[in-house]
Amino acid sequence: MKKSIGAKTFLYPMPVFIVGTYDEQKKPNIATVAWGGICCSKPPCLNVCLRQATYTYGNLMARKAFTVNIPSETHVKESDYVGIASGRDTDKFAVAGLTPVASDLVDAPYIQEFPMVLECKVSHVLEIGLHTLFVGEILDIKVDEACLTENGKPDITKIKPFSFAMDSQAYYGTGPYLAPAFAIGKELKK
Amino acid sequence: MKKSIGAKTFLYPMPVFIVGTYDEQKKPNIATVAWGGICCSKPPCLNVCLRQATYTYGNLMARKAFTVNIPSETHVKESDYVGIASGRDTDKFAVAGLTPVASDLVDAPYIQEFPMVLECKVSHVLEIGLHTLFVGEILDIKVDEACLTENGKPDITKIKPFSFAMDSQAYYGTGPYLAPAFAIGKELKK
Repeated sequence: MKKSIGAKTFLYPMPVFIVGTYDEQKKPNIATVAWGGICCSKPPCLNVCLRQATYTYGNLMARKAFTVNIPSETHVKESDYVGIASGRDTDKFAVAGLTPVASDLVDAPYIQEFPMVLECKVSHVLEIGLHTLFVGEILDIKVDEACLTENGKPDITKIKPFSFAMDSQAYYGTGPYLAPAFAIGKELKK
Repeated sequence: MKKSIGAKTFLYPMPVFIVGTYDEQKKPNIATVAWGGICCSKPPCLNVCLRQATYTYGNLMARKAFTVNIPSETHVKESDYVGIASGRDTDKFAVAGLTPVASDLVDAPYIQEFPMVLECKVSHVLEIGLHTLFVGEILDIKVDEACLTENGKPDITKIKPFSFAMDSQAYYGTGPYLAPAFAIGKELKK
């Protein structure tokens, strides 16, 4: 039996993306974003959503560029910190002990210590309500060599991404392999 | 050392949403979508992204309503099947052994057997490229009573959502509890 819990923003899984931008003085900034995901395959695009009041919103509107950095389980403390401090009055890279690297493709910094980064150029801006949705065209993905498969693809078991559970306000790791996609479902087609 | 792997659509974690819609004849349909997420808190909204060629795209454009159903680990086979068959020539509910329930709030069906559903009304349509992004205002969330905490919130450890790893084309479960959000990061503030 299903019970109504009202109009809320619970959803599973919810990601933990660290968005890298430069401010007006080119100070590198990072902010945690749980609202976003891939949104187009051709051109490859992702979206992140931000409140107008955030420092990253202003940076994004001015620079039209950002990176999305994927943290490993070992970066849970840094990822959480980046979501509770503001770049207006803090150098979050310095406090978190992280190293900004200038992207060679977009006007934004990425995090050296994180295993994977997507470099994006803002292509669409959609104001929805309290949040604004930014679509970024993915110009490149860079992955730590140690986190690649033999075939040169990212390896989820080496990247060890985690997710955010809004219900309990907690972070959860990636669980065990369950089944092959585009394959296990064929059993029902017979 | 990071290695460039090109402009692709890899991202972690990637969700597995089952989108419920009605077609012109009011036949209930479901489709698997990995591209989407929460996109606004006020009003509460989520987005899903679809190719124009899909059956669900036409249903969404006509009905302006949909549900997002969150599967449990036990529904991995059904969720995969729903992503590889088309509603044009199949009754996917019937083949997957799932039961459509008419939403009382929006013109769309949801899946009785899945633990959680978000009922949405399309508020924005953004054409990006091969994919179109649909923003849906969340009018209500319904959760199986057995998957709620004592405080009436969804419980990730009971819902047992899973994610899609595009690299290896596989499904992965939810992993262990790692740390409290908006808390563990404070240790870096000192």
